[in-house]
Amino acid sequence: MPVRGLVVGRFQPFHKGHLAVIREVLKQCDDLVLVIGSAEESHTEKNPFTAGERYQMILSSLTDEERARVHIIPVRDVNRYSVWVNHVESYVPPFDVVFSNSELTRSLFSQAGYEVRKTRAYNPRMYSATEIRRRIVSGERWEHLVPAPVAQMLRAMDARQRLLASGAKPTRARRRGRCAR
Amino acid sequence: MPVRGLVVGRFQPFHKGHLAVIREVLKQCDDLVLVIGSAEESHTEKNPFTAGERYQMILSSLTDEERARVHIIPVRDVNRYSVWVNHVESYVPPFDVVFSNSELTRSLFSQAGYEVRKTRAYNPRMYSATEIRRRIVSGERWEHLVPAPVAQMLRAMDARQRLLASGAKPTRARRRGRCAR
Amino acid sequence: MPVRGLVVGRFQPFHKGHLAVIREVLKQCDDLVLVIGSAEESHTEKNPFTAGERYQMILSSLTDEERARVHIIPVRDVNRYSVWVNHVESYVPPFDVVFSNSELTRSLFSQAGYEVRKTRAYNPRMYSATEIRRRIVSGERWEHLVPAPVAQMLRAMDARQRLLASGAKPTRARRRGRCAR
Amino acid sequence: MPVRGLVVGRFQPFHKGHLAVIREVLKQCDDLVLVIGSAEESHTEKNPFTAGERYQMILSSLTDEERARVHIIPVRDVNRYSVWVNHVESYVPPFDVVFSNSELTRSLFSQAGYEVRKTRAYNPRMYSATEIRRRIVSGERWEHLVPAPVAQMLRAMDARQRLLASGAKPTRARRRGRCAR
Amino acid sequence: MPVRGLVVGRFQPFHKGHLAVIREVLKQCDDLVLVIGSAEESHTEKNPFTAGERYQMILSSLTDEERARVHIIPVRDVNRYSVWVNHVESYVPPFDVVFSNSELTRSLFSQAGYEVRKTRAYNPRMYSATEIRRRIVSGERWEHLVPAPVAQMLRAMDARQRLLASGAKPTRARRRGRCAR
Amino acid sequence: MPVRGLVVGRFQPFHKGHLAVIREVLKQCDDLVLVIGSAEESHTEKNPFTAGERYQMILSSLTDEERARVHIIPVRDVNRYSVWVNHVESYVPPFDVVFSNSELTRSLFSQAGYEVRKTRAYNPRMYSATEIRRRIVSGERWEHLVPAPVAQMLRAMDARQRLLASGAKPTRARRRGRCAR
Repeated sequence: MPVRGLVVGRFQPFHKGHLAVIREVLKQCDDLVLVIGSAEESHTEKNPFTAGERYQMILSSLTDEERARVHIIPVRDVNRYSVWVNHVESYVPPFDVVFSNSELTRSLFSQAGYEVRKTRAYNPRMYSATEIRRRIVSGERWEHLVPAPVAQMLRAMDARQRLLASGAKPTRARRRGRCAR
Repeated sequence: MPVRGLVVGRFQPFHKGHLAVIREVLKQCDDLVLVIGSAEESHTEKNPFTAGERYQMILSSLTDEERARVHIIPVRDVNRYSVWVNHVESYVPPFDVVFSNSELTRSLFSQAGYEVRKTRAYNPRMYSATEIRRRIVSGERWEHLVPAPVAQMLRAMDARQRLLASGAKPTRARRRGRCAR
Repeated sequence: MPVRGLVVGRFQPFHKGHLAVIREVLKQCDDLVLVIGSAEESHTEKNPFTAGERYQMILSSLTDEERARVHIIPVRDVNRYSVWVNHVESYVPPFDVVFSNSELTRSLFSQAGYEVRKTRAYNPRMYSATEIRRRIVSGERWEHLVPAPVAQMLRAMDARQRLLASGAKPTRARRRGRCAR
Repeated sequence: MPVRGLVVGRFQPFHKGHLAVIREVLKQCDDLVLVIGSAEESHTEKNPFTAGERYQMILSSLTDEERARVHIIPVRDVNRYSVWVNHVESYVPPFDVVFSNSELTRSLFSQAGYEVRKTRAYNPRMYSATEIRRRIVSGERWEHLVPAPVAQMLRAMDARQRLLASGAKPTRARRRGRCAR
Repeated sequence: MPVRGLVVGRFQPFHKGHLAVIREVLKQCDDLVLVIGSAEESHTEKNPFTAGERYQMILSSLTDEERARVHIIPVRDVNRYSVWVNHVESYVPPFDVVFSNSELTRSLFSQAGYEVRKTRAYNPRMYSATEIRRRIVSGERWEHLVPAPVAQMLRAMDARQRLLASGAKPTRARRRGRCAR
Repeated sequence: MPVRGLVVGRFQPFHKGHLAVIREVLKQCDDLVLVIGSAEESHTEKNPFTAGERYQMILSSLTDEERARVHIIPVRDVNRYSVWVNHVESYVPPFDVVFSNSELTRSLFSQAGYEVRKTRAYNPRMYSATEIRRRIVSGERWEHLVPAPVAQMLRAMDARQRLLASGAKPTRARRRGRCAR
């Protein structure tokens, strides 16, 4: 009996931490539904890239064998958590296990009867889409944080200009000790 | 320079004519975006199956090699043709050629600057989703019109019951000479 | 352990057949959620009255004791059957048994795990909202088909004028023998 | 000539201050329309509970006699104040007097020709849904601020877990002299 | 005290009957709000032209003096008659008199307190947008039914092709005597 | 060959800086489409006035000759930048040059093939809608910043009360030197 996993993300942009999660889940499942969340958002500070651009980033980072096992599906927000599980179910083929570290996602799918598993976190301070966007807009080094084809795509589309037009502002990195004091 | 095709359909249900179109386009292109239109519709007479069910029908009909080259993407209707091209563009990775026999689709994408090509029609009286739904609900033979895994899925979900609950009524086939007189 | 029923209707207008169903269900349950469907529709041929007007029709037809046990709740359509059960659940207090004679309603709630029961039909040719609207707009007798307070409300708001403005046209009754055979 | 009042609230959750307002208004009116605002919101920091859950909280706090006089009606936001009065009017039975302390609500209904009255405030620092949510999530005492059946419901559904999953964070009470220093 | 009129139409396409109504209303009012209804519809059989195209048709048919007195405003449908008056009011500057021959429009605005007047009908069998669309798509003479600049626009955009792509089919004129009897 | 400009603004409220931009653009173009953005917003802190009220402000500030050349068109937000250009195009007559100082607007229209030009800034610290709203709500002098007919309209509708009901709070002016350097 094959087992299918479900992973939800916004992938703004797709980075090496995301790729590591995909590969971890592919070890536990036969195949994988990868939901691109907030599919209709783009050109905003938190969601600068269209679903189509994010689809292409993911696609270009996978091997051929992975492409046959990873089903990338853009799903728009409904802004109503009470119907969200039904909404996702209507968009994607049947799945068995939800992989997520978000309390809300885990709670909603678990209440609907799905098995829910956590994934490992891959250096979340570094492999963070927020941090990567900050680095791009601030002119710092970011290419090593994303798969090579994504780096190439982002340079080709002048990602820095896109982020600026989407409302992002250059800032310095938050210091290590930030919350320490 | 790889070339990517775009095909739009509702796939209610996915049948052998659809599969033939996919295989025809894959000969002309490197890969293919397959848009599942009216993605949010289900349980209605014309759209009995959810996008997720249709996704699964298509997936199960493709070979592994095809799965790596066919990008299945459910896209909801916007009910505003004036923004439809932008809407599709925002959901799917970049594409080059639109394959369609619909005048409206051809006209909208052509006006937006895309190359548009026709596809061959595969015995459209027989390989027709409308006809297949009619046969299912009327208790006639239909399994030979869809790929074997789709036939299996439809039987397993009791498609006839779904169609009846969605408002379909059993009818006889329309006679050959229908508009002749 | 108290048992709560759920009944869905459009009540365009509320008639004696609806009231009989409510009273039948109240015998089987402790209390009852009465969903006014298509809540946002009004001034159309099939939905001439607002949810508020329908609410008032129902309220004025119930006894005080019934008012404390019947929870009238207007719910708008979502036009997506795939999320409809979640949608209704989010609007109404928890319920146990769904009373409906519609195949689709029964199938959706049953698939979501609810017990589903049929109700008796109360002379459906006569106690039919469609027939009552036809009679009102055609100047025939209709008052005996609705509870007295509803008849009074409809006369006070000049229901015939509302139906005409909503696009209804006077027609003759469909002949008896039509569906016979 | 019976007089019907209208009260709008979000009831996240329903507390003793809300119940006092209802009882105050029931002294001035024959019956009362109680609108559950933001009906489609749930699982967010400010709106953790569904409309159905809030409906049940209110219902379980009323006496039988009150249930027959209080018409609880969930109404979704339209996010367009320019149509808000028409929107509410379409959902609820006719009403005469709007009870509200919000400047905007008072101004919109007053401009539409309704009589508008203020209600007494019942120790608003204490009987505040925001404060109650803060106490629940922070593990402080809150049960005495809501009617007993609401306290029971909230414990049974593990309200603390719901609030955390909805994005709330434990915080200390804001000091009396709040902005003083 | 200046008086402002309001006229609602879909203008698919704008024809000489519409222009006559505008000129009739301009005799009774100081200026005129001309609402382009169903503004978001286009490329459908009943609404082939975008609001922008219809705007241009109207603009090009008016004299400079009329342009300063006619305020053309596209307004999308809300599909909820219960909020329609508020919806229109929020989009257009204040107006005094509604000119309409539609029962529903007259009833909704009249109930909201507006003065409502009828306009003369200008040979409605001939100056009919439906009839003009039928003639265009069927290859019959139509240019004499629209203002000259509209005829020029429609030819330049190949209106026949647009109508065909929007789903229209060539048909014969309905015979004179059709409704006679 | 006549040239038509496009200007987008929210005009909350319309002020002398806006009027200066219109007059500057009218020198470069034959006529001008003036889009009232966020058309469906009103009664909020950032968008206190309805599109209709803003339409009237603009109309009353133009000369008759200008009214014939300026086409004021309210356009609602779509909240999806990926379809925004198509959305605007569907609402307004054809245009040639977009005048804007917003990076995002310039980038989206430029990518869609339009010529994009900057406009002069007219003392933006003073002729700022944000600053004017602050002055109105705080009881400071503001009438000299808007055209005289706008000042009259705002006084007549008691703009201060509207702003307060919309959630604005009186504040002091931000000090001169704040953003300097």
